[in-house]
Amino acid sequence: MYPKSLENLIQCFKTLPGVGAKTAERYAFSILDSTEEEAEFFMKSILDVKSKIKHCSCCGNISEEELCEICADANRDKSMICVVQESKDILAMEKMKEYTGVYHVLNGALSSTKGIMPEDLNIDNLLKRIDENIKEVILATNPTMEGETTALYLDKLLKSKDVYVTRIAHGLPMGGHLDYADELTLVKAFEGRKKIV
Amino acid sequence: MYPKSLENLIQCFKTLPGVGAKTAERYAFSILDSTEEEAEFFMKSILDVKSKIKHCSCCGNISEEELCEICADANRDKSMICVVQESKDILAMEKMKEYTGVYHVLNGALSSTKGIMPEDLNIDNLLKRIDENIKEVILATNPTMEGETTALYLDKLLKSKDVYVTRIAHGLPMGGHLDYADELTLVKAFEGRKKIV
Repeated sequence: MYPKSLENLIQCFKTLPGVGAKTAERYAFSILDSTEEEAEFFMKSILDVKSKIKHCSCCGNISEEELCEICADANRDKSMICVVQESKDILAMEKMKEYTGVYHVLNGALSSTKGIMPEDLNIDNLLKRIDENIKEVILATNPTMEGETTALYLDKLLKSKDVYVTRIAHGLPMGGHLDYADELTLVKAFEGRKKIV
Repeated sequence: MYPKSLENLIQCFKTLPGVGAKTAERYAFSILDSTEEEAEFFMKSILDVKSKIKHCSCCGNISEEELCEICADANRDKSMICVVQESKDILAMEKMKEYTGVYHVLNGALSSTKGIMPEDLNIDNLLKRIDENIKEVILATNPTMEGETTALYLDKLLKSKDVYVTRIAHGLPMGGHLDYADELTLVKAFEGRKKIV
Protein backbone atom coordinates (compact mmCIF):
# COMPACT_ATOMS: atom_id res chain seq x y z
CA MET A 1 0.00 0.00 0.00
CA TYR A 2 1.14 3.51 -0.78
CA PRO A 3 0.94 6.24 1.89
CA LYS A 4 -2.62 7.55 2.35
CA SER A 5 -2.02 10.93 0.72
CA LEU A 6 -0.57 9.32 -2.41
CA GLU A 7 -3.48 6.84 -2.55
CA ASN A 8 -5.89 9.80 -2.37
CA LEU A 9 -4.18 11.54 -5.26
CA ILE A 10 -4.24 8.32 -7.30
CA GLN A 11 -8.00 8.11 -6.62
CA CYS A 12 -8.42 11.70 -7.83
CA PHE A 13 -6.63 10.99 -11.08
CA LYS A 14 -8.72 7.85 -11.56
CA THR A 15 -11.87 10.01 -11.76
CA LEU A 16 -10.53 11.64 -14.96
CA PRO A 17 -11.97 10.23 -18.20
CA GLY A 18 -10.15 7.15 -19.49
CA VAL A 19 -7.63 6.98 -16.64
CA GLY A 20 -7.04 3.55 -15.09
CA ALA A 21 -5.09 2.48 -12.01
CA LYS A 22 -1.65 2.32 -13.67
CA THR A 23 -1.97 5.66 -15.42
CA ALA A 24 -3.29 7.36 -12.27
CA GLU A 25 -0.27 5.97 -10.41
CA ARG A 26 2.13 7.41 -13.01
CA TYR A 27 0.41 10.80 -12.80
CA ALA A 28 0.55 10.83 -8.99
CA PHE A 29 4.26 9.96 -8.98
CA SER A 30 4.81 12.71 -11.52
CA ILE A 31 3.19 15.20 -9.12
CA LEU A 32 5.32 13.80 -6.30
CA ASP A 33 8.44 14.42 -8.37
CA SER A 34 7.38 17.90 -9.50
CA THR A 35 8.75 21.08 -7.93
CA GLU A 36 6.86 23.03 -5.25
CA GLU A 37 6.07 25.76 -7.78
CA GLU A 38 4.62 23.33 -10.30
CA ALA A 39 2.39 21.74 -7.67
CA GLU A 40 1.28 25.17 -6.42
CA PHE A 41 0.43 26.21 -9.97
CA PHE A 42 -1.54 23.00 -10.48
CA MET A 43 -3.62 23.65 -7.36
CA LYS A 44 -4.15 27.30 -8.26
CA SER A 45 -5.26 26.34 -11.78
CA ILE A 46 -7.90 23.96 -10.42
CA LEU A 47 -9.09 26.65 -8.00
CA ASP A 48 -9.23 29.28 -10.76
CA VAL A 49 -11.11 27.04 -13.16
CA LYS A 50 -13.69 26.24 -10.51
CA SER A 51 -14.07 29.78 -9.22
CA LYS A 52 -13.65 31.96 -12.32
CA ILE A 53 -15.27 30.07 -15.17
CA LYS A 54 -18.96 30.58 -15.77
CA HIS A 55 -21.21 30.45 -18.81
CA CYS A 56 -21.60 33.39 -21.18
CA SER A 57 -25.01 34.92 -20.47
CA CYS A 58 -25.70 35.22 -24.18
CA CYS A 59 -24.48 32.02 -25.87
CA GLY A 60 -23.67 29.62 -23.01
CA ASN A 61 -20.00 29.27 -23.96
CA ILE A 62 -17.53 29.01 -21.06
CA SER A 63 -16.07 32.38 -20.11
CA GLU A 64 -14.44 34.27 -17.28
CA GLU A 65 -16.51 37.36 -18.11
CA GLU A 66 -20.26 37.98 -18.30
CA LEU A 67 -19.97 37.75 -22.10
CA CYS A 68 -17.56 35.36 -23.79
CA GLU A 69 -14.77 36.62 -26.09
CA ILE A 70 -16.81 35.92 -29.22
CA CYS A 71 -20.08 37.50 -28.08
CA ALA A 72 -18.13 40.54 -26.82
CA ASP A 73 -16.30 40.95 -30.14
CA ALA A 74 -17.86 43.83 -32.10
CA ASN A 75 -16.39 42.49 -35.35
CA ARG A 76 -18.39 39.25 -35.26
CA ASP A 77 -21.49 39.02 -37.42
CA LYS A 78 -24.35 38.81 -34.91
CA SER A 79 -26.87 37.86 -37.61
CA MET A 80 -25.54 34.29 -37.90
CA ILE A 81 -25.76 31.82 -35.04
CA CYS A 82 -23.96 28.50 -35.19
CA VAL A 83 -25.47 26.02 -32.71
CA VAL A 84 -23.03 23.50 -31.20
CA GLN A 85 -23.28 20.88 -28.46
CA GLU A 86 -20.24 21.79 -26.36
CA SER A 87 -17.93 24.73 -25.73
CA LYS A 88 -15.01 22.78 -27.13
CA ASP A 89 -16.81 22.45 -30.46
CA ILE A 90 -16.42 26.21 -30.81
CA LEU A 91 -12.64 25.85 -30.71
CA ALA A 92 -12.83 23.31 -33.56
CA MET A 93 -15.01 25.65 -35.62
CA GLU A 94 -12.77 28.62 -34.93
CA LYS A 95 -9.76 26.72 -36.27
CA MET A 96 -11.14 26.91 -39.81
CA LYS A 97 -11.06 30.74 -39.60
CA GLU A 98 -13.91 31.02 -42.16
CA TYR A 99 -16.85 31.62 -39.88
CA THR A 100 -17.36 35.18 -38.65
CA GLY A 101 -20.75 34.76 -36.97
CA VAL A 102 -21.50 33.93 -33.34
CA TYR A 103 -22.31 30.68 -31.53
CA HIS A 104 -24.83 29.08 -29.23
CA VAL A 105 -23.80 26.25 -26.93
CA LEU A 106 -26.51 23.73 -26.05
CA ASN A 107 -24.43 21.98 -23.38
CA GLY A 108 -25.37 18.53 -24.60
CA ALA A 109 -27.75 16.82 -27.00
CA LEU A 110 -31.15 15.20 -26.69
CA SER A 111 -30.86 11.59 -25.60
CA SER A 112 -33.63 9.23 -24.62
CA THR A 113 -31.15 6.69 -23.22
CA LYS A 114 -29.39 9.25 -21.03
CA GLY A 115 -32.71 10.93 -20.25
CA ILE A 116 -31.66 14.32 -21.61
CA MET A 117 -34.80 16.28 -22.52
CA PRO A 118 -35.18 19.66 -24.30
CA GLU A 119 -35.53 21.47 -20.95
CA ASP A 120 -32.07 20.17 -19.91
CA LEU A 121 -30.43 21.98 -22.82
CA ASN A 122 -29.72 25.67 -23.36
CA ILE A 123 -32.60 25.98 -25.87
CA ASP A 124 -34.78 28.67 -24.25
CA ASN A 125 -31.95 31.18 -24.51
CA LEU A 126 -31.50 30.29 -28.17
CA LEU A 127 -35.16 31.03 -28.92
CA LYS A 128 -34.85 34.34 -27.06
CA ARG A 129 -31.95 35.32 -29.32
CA ILE A 130 -34.00 34.84 -32.50
CA ASP A 131 -35.40 38.13 -33.79
CA GLU A 132 -35.69 39.89 -37.17
CA ASN A 133 -31.94 40.60 -37.16
CA ILE A 134 -31.00 36.93 -37.31
CA LYS A 135 -30.42 35.88 -40.92
CA GLU A 136 -29.36 32.27 -40.41
CA VAL A 137 -29.10 29.59 -37.76
CA ILE A 138 -26.57 26.87 -38.60
CA LEU A 139 -27.14 23.60 -36.76
CA ALA A 140 -23.68 22.14 -36.12
CA THR A 141 -24.52 19.39 -33.62
CA ASN A 142 -22.51 16.19 -34.06
CA PRO A 143 -23.43 13.79 -36.89
CA THR A 144 -24.46 11.15 -34.33
CA MET A 145 -27.89 9.78 -33.47
CA GLU A 146 -28.19 12.25 -30.59
CA GLY A 147 -26.86 15.21 -32.56
CA GLU A 148 -29.18 14.48 -35.49
CA THR A 149 -32.20 14.18 -33.22
CA THR A 150 -31.31 17.49 -31.59
CA ALA A 151 -30.86 19.16 -34.99
CA LEU A 152 -34.26 17.90 -36.21
CA TYR A 153 -35.92 19.05 -32.99
CA LEU A 154 -34.37 22.52 -33.24
CA ASP A 155 -35.21 22.79 -36.94
CA LYS A 156 -38.89 22.22 -36.18
CA LEU A 157 -38.83 24.68 -33.29
CA LEU A 158 -37.03 27.40 -35.25
CA LYS A 159 -39.21 27.10 -38.35
CA SER A 160 -42.14 28.38 -36.27
CA LYS A 161 -39.94 31.46 -35.64
CA ASP A 162 -39.63 32.02 -39.38
CA VAL A 163 -35.83 31.99 -39.46
CA TYR A 164 -33.53 30.47 -42.11
CA VAL A 165 -32.13 27.23 -40.65
CA THR A 166 -29.29 25.17 -42.17
CA ARG A 167 -27.47 21.99 -41.16
CA ILE A 168 -23.72 21.48 -41.73
CA ALA A 169 -23.01 19.03 -44.58
CA HIS A 170 -22.41 15.34 -44.01
CA GLY A 171 -20.25 13.33 -46.36
CA LEU A 172 -16.80 11.85 -46.79
CA PRO A 173 -14.15 13.53 -44.67
CA MET A 174 -11.32 15.09 -46.67
CA GLY A 175 -8.40 12.70 -47.02
CA GLY A 176 -10.72 9.77 -46.35
CA HIS A 177 -11.08 6.65 -48.48
CA LEU A 178 -14.32 5.28 -49.93
CA ASP A 179 -13.60 1.75 -48.79
CA TYR A 180 -13.14 2.85 -45.17
CA ALA A 181 -16.36 4.89 -45.07
CA ASP A 182 -19.42 3.45 -43.30
CA GLU A 183 -22.68 3.04 -45.19
CA LEU A 184 -24.47 5.93 -43.52
CA THR A 185 -21.68 8.34 -44.44
CA LEU A 186 -21.81 7.11 -48.04
CA VAL A 187 -25.59 7.55 -48.15
CA LYS A 188 -25.19 11.13 -46.86
CA ALA A 189 -22.37 11.78 -49.35
CA PHE A 190 -24.61 10.60 -52.20
CA GLU A 191 -27.63 12.55 -51.03
CA GLY A 192 -25.53 15.68 -50.74
CA ARG A 193 -23.88 15.40 -54.17
CA LYS A 194 -23.51 18.64 -56.14
CA LYS A 195 -22.83 19.62 -59.74
CA ILE A 196 -19.17 20.43 -60.30
CA VAL A 197 -18.95 24.08 -61.21
CA MET B 1 -8.95 30.35 -27.30
CA TYR B 2 -10.24 29.02 -24.01
CA PRO B 3 -10.43 31.32 -20.98
CA LYS B 4 -7.02 31.85 -19.35
CA SER B 5 -7.72 29.76 -16.26
CA LEU B 6 -8.79 26.77 -18.35
CA GLU B 7 -5.73 27.15 -20.59
CA ASN B 8 -3.55 27.12 -17.46
CA LEU B 9 -5.14 23.90 -16.21
CA ILE B 10 -4.69 22.31 -19.64
CA GLN B 11 -1.00 23.27 -19.48
CA CYS B 12 -0.72 21.64 -16.04
CA PHE B 13 -2.20 18.38 -17.28
CA LYS B 14 0.12 18.46 -20.29
CA THR B 15 3.11 18.20 -17.94
CA LEU B 16 1.92 14.74 -16.83
CA PRO B 17 3.70 11.82 -18.53
CA GLY B 18 2.19 10.81 -21.87
CA VAL B 19 -0.52 13.48 -21.87
CA GLY B 20 -0.98 15.43 -25.11
CA ALA B 21 -3.09 18.47 -25.94
CA LYS B 22 -6.36 16.61 -26.60
CA THR B 23 -6.15 14.48 -23.47
CA ALA B 24 -5.19 17.46 -21.30
CA GLU B 25 -8.24 19.27 -22.67
CA ARG B 26 -10.52 16.36 -21.75
CA TYR B 27 -9.06 16.25 -18.24
CA ALA B 28 -9.49 20.00 -17.76
CA PHE B 29 -13.12 19.86 -18.90
CA SER B 30 -13.67 16.95 -16.53
CA ILE B 31 -12.41 19.13 -13.64
CA LEU B 32 -14.66 21.96 -14.85
CA ASP B 33 -17.64 19.61 -14.74
CA SER B 34 -16.73 18.11 -11.35
CA THR B 35 -18.43 19.16 -8.11
CA GLU B 36 -16.90 21.69 -5.72
CA GLU B 37 -16.10 18.90 -3.26
CA GLU B 38 -14.29 16.80 -5.88
CA ALA B 39 -12.18 19.78 -6.96
CA GLU B 40 -11.41 20.64 -3.31
CA PHE B 41 -10.35 17.06 -2.66
CA PHE B 42 -8.13 17.09 -5.74
CA MET B 43 -6.34 20.24 -4.57
CA LYS B 44 -6.00 18.93 -1.02
CA SER B 45 -4.56 15.65 -2.32
CA ILE B 46 -1.88 17.45 -4.30
CA LEU B 47 -1.07 19.59 -1.25
CA ASP B 48 -0.90 16.53 1.03
CA VAL B 49 1.32 14.58 -1.33
CA LYS B 50 3.74 17.48 -1.62
CA SER B 51 3.76 18.33 2.09
CA LYS B 52 3.44 14.96 3.84
CA ILE B 53 5.38 12.49 1.74
CA LYS B 54 9.07 12.08 2.46
CA HIS B 55 11.56 9.26 2.15
CA CYS B 56 11.90 6.54 4.80
CA SER B 57 15.13 7.29 6.67
CA CYS B 58 16.08 3.62 6.57
CA CYS B 59 15.24 2.28 3.10
CA GLY B 60 14.39 5.38 1.04
CA ASN B 61 10.83 4.22 0.26
CA ILE B 62 8.16 6.96 0.14
CA SER B 63 6.42 7.37 3.48
CA GLU B 64 4.43 9.82 5.56
CA GLU B 65 6.33 8.72 8.69
CA GLU B 66 10.02 8.70 9.59
CA LEU B 67 10.06 4.97 8.88
CA CYS B 68 7.95 3.43 6.09
CA GLU B 69 5.28 0.82 6.83
CA ILE B 70 7.58 -2.05 5.93
CA CYS B 71 10.64 -0.91 7.90
CA ALA B 72 8.36 -0.18 10.89
CA ASP B 73 6.78 -3.64 10.74
CA ALA B 74 8.27 -5.86 13.49
CA ASN B 75 7.16 -9.00 11.63
CA ARG B 76 9.38 -8.34 8.60
CA ASP B 77 12.64 -10.23 8.35
CA LYS B 78 15.30 -7.54 8.70
CA SER B 79 18.09 -9.92 7.64
CA MET B 80 17.05 -9.85 3.98
CA ILE B 81 17.24 -6.68 1.89
CA CYS B 82 15.69 -6.53 -1.57
CA VAL B 83 17.18 -3.66 -3.59
CA VAL B 84 14.82 -1.98 -6.09
CA GLN B 85 15.05 1.08 -8.32
CA GLU B 86 11.79 2.82 -7.41
CA SER B 87 9.24 2.92 -4.63
CA LYS B 88 6.57 1.58 -6.96
CA ASP B 89 8.64 -1.54 -7.55
CA ILE B 90 8.01 -2.40 -3.90
CA LEU B 91 4.27 -2.51 -4.58
CA ALA B 92 4.86 -4.97 -7.41
CA MET B 93 7.03 -7.17 -5.17
CA GLU B 94 4.52 -7.02 -2.32
CA LYS B 95 1.78 -8.29 -4.62
CA MET B 96 3.41 -11.74 -4.75
CA LYS B 97 3.05 -12.02 -0.93
CA GLU B 98 6.06 -14.39 -0.75
CA TYR B 99 8.77 -12.03 0.36
CA THR B 100 8.92 -11.25 4.08
CA GLY B 101 12.19 -9.29 4.14
CA VAL B 102 12.72 -5.55 3.84
CA TYR B 103 13.62 -3.30 0.90
CA HIS B 104 16.05 -0.66 -0.18
CA VAL B 105 15.06 1.92 -2.79
CA LEU B 106 17.88 3.32 -4.96
CA ASN B 107 15.72 6.05 -6.52
CA GLY B 108 17.01 5.33 -9.99
CA ALA B 109 19.69 3.35 -11.78
CA LEU B 110 23.17 4.09 -13.07
CA SER B 111 23.06 5.61 -16.53
CA SER B 112 25.88 7.10 -18.51
CA THR B 113 23.51 8.64 -21.06
CA LYS B 114 21.39 10.36 -18.38
CA GLY B 115 24.50 11.13 -16.34
CA ILE B 116 23.33 9.27 -13.25
CA MET B 117 26.38 8.33 -11.18
CA PRO B 118 26.65 6.16 -8.03
CA GLU B 119 26.58 9.25 -5.80
CA ASP B 120 23.17 10.21 -7.23
CA LEU B 121 21.65 6.98 -5.94
CA ASN B 122 20.71 5.92 -2.41
CA ILE B 123 23.74 3.60 -2.19
CA ASP B 124 25.59 5.00 0.84
CA ASN B 125 22.62 4.23 3.06
CA LEU B 126 22.52 0.70 1.68
CA LEU B 127 26.16 0.12 2.63
CA LYS B 128 25.49 1.49 6.12
CA ARG B 129 22.70 -1.06 6.56
CA ILE B 130 25.01 -4.00 5.85
CA ASP B 131 26.26 -5.62 9.05
CA GLU B 132 26.69 -9.15 10.41
CA ASN B 133 22.91 -9.49 10.83
CA ILE B 134 22.25 -9.23 7.07
CA LYS B 135 22.03 -12.70 5.56
CA GLU B 136 21.19 -11.80 1.97
CA VAL B 137 20.93 -8.85 -0.38
CA ILE B 138 18.68 -9.51 -3.39
CA LEU B 139 19.34 -7.23 -6.34
CA ALA B 140 15.96 -6.64 -8.00
CA THR B 141 16.79 -3.76 -10.32
CA ASN B 142 15.07 -3.91 -13.72
CA PRO B 143 16.38 -6.32 -16.37
CA THR B 144 17.41 -3.38 -18.56
CA MET B 145 20.84 -2.13 -19.53
CA GLU B 146 20.75 0.42 -16.71
CA GLY B 147 19.35 -1.99 -14.14
CA GLU B 148 21.93 -4.65 -15.05
CA THR B 149 24.78 -2.15 -14.80
CA THR B 150 23.54 -1.04 -11.39
CA ALA B 151 23.23 -4.65 -10.20
CA LEU B 152 26.80 -5.45 -11.33
CA TYR B 153 28.12 -2.32 -9.65
CA LEU B 154 26.34 -3.12 -6.37
CA ASP B 155 27.43 -6.75 -6.51
CA LYS B 156 31.08 -5.68 -6.67
CA LEU B 157 30.62 -3.15 -3.89
CA LEU B 158 28.77 -5.56 -1.60
CA LYS B 159 31.18 -8.43 -2.10
CA SER B 160 33.83 -6.35 -0.32
CA LYS B 161 31.41 -6.28 2.62
CA ASP B 162 31.37 -10.09 2.67
CA VAL B 163 27.59 -10.42 2.33
CA TYR B 164 25.64 -13.00 0.30
CA VAL B 165 24.35 -11.22 -2.84
CA THR B 166 21.79 -12.65 -5.29
CA ARG B 167 20.12 -11.36 -8.46
CA ILE B 168 16.49 -12.10 -9.37
CA ALA B 169 16.18 -14.64 -12.21
CA HIS B 170 15.80 -13.63 -15.82
CA GLY B 171 13.97 -15.81 -18.31
CA LEU B 172 10.68 -16.27 -20.09
CA PRO B 173 7.74 -14.60 -18.37
CA MET B 174 4.95 -16.96 -17.33
CA GLY B 175 2.22 -17.15 -19.97
CA GLY B 176 4.69 -15.91 -22.58
CA HIS B 177 5.44 -17.52 -25.92
CA LEU B 178 8.87 -18.56 -27.22
CA ASP B 179 8.33 -16.95 -30.61
CA TYR B 180 7.53 -13.60 -29.05
CA ALA B 181 10.57 -13.59 -26.77
CA ASP B 182 13.56 -11.45 -27.70
CA GLU B 183 16.99 -13.04 -28.12
CA LEU B 184 18.45 -11.69 -24.90
CA THR B 185 15.58 -13.11 -22.87
CA LEU B 186 16.06 -16.49 -24.57
CA VAL B 187 19.81 -16.40 -23.86
CA LYS B 188 19.07 -15.67 -20.19
CA ALA B 189 16.41 -18.40 -20.09
CA PHE B 190 18.91 -20.91 -21.48
CA GLU B 191 21.71 -19.83 -19.16
CA GLY B 192 19.39 -20.11 -16.19
CA ARG B 193 17.99 -23.55 -17.06
CA LYS B 194 17.57 -26.00 -14.16
CA LYS B 195 17.07 -29.74 -13.75
CA ILE B 196 13.41 -30.60 -13.34
CA VAL B 197 12.95 -32.03 -9.86
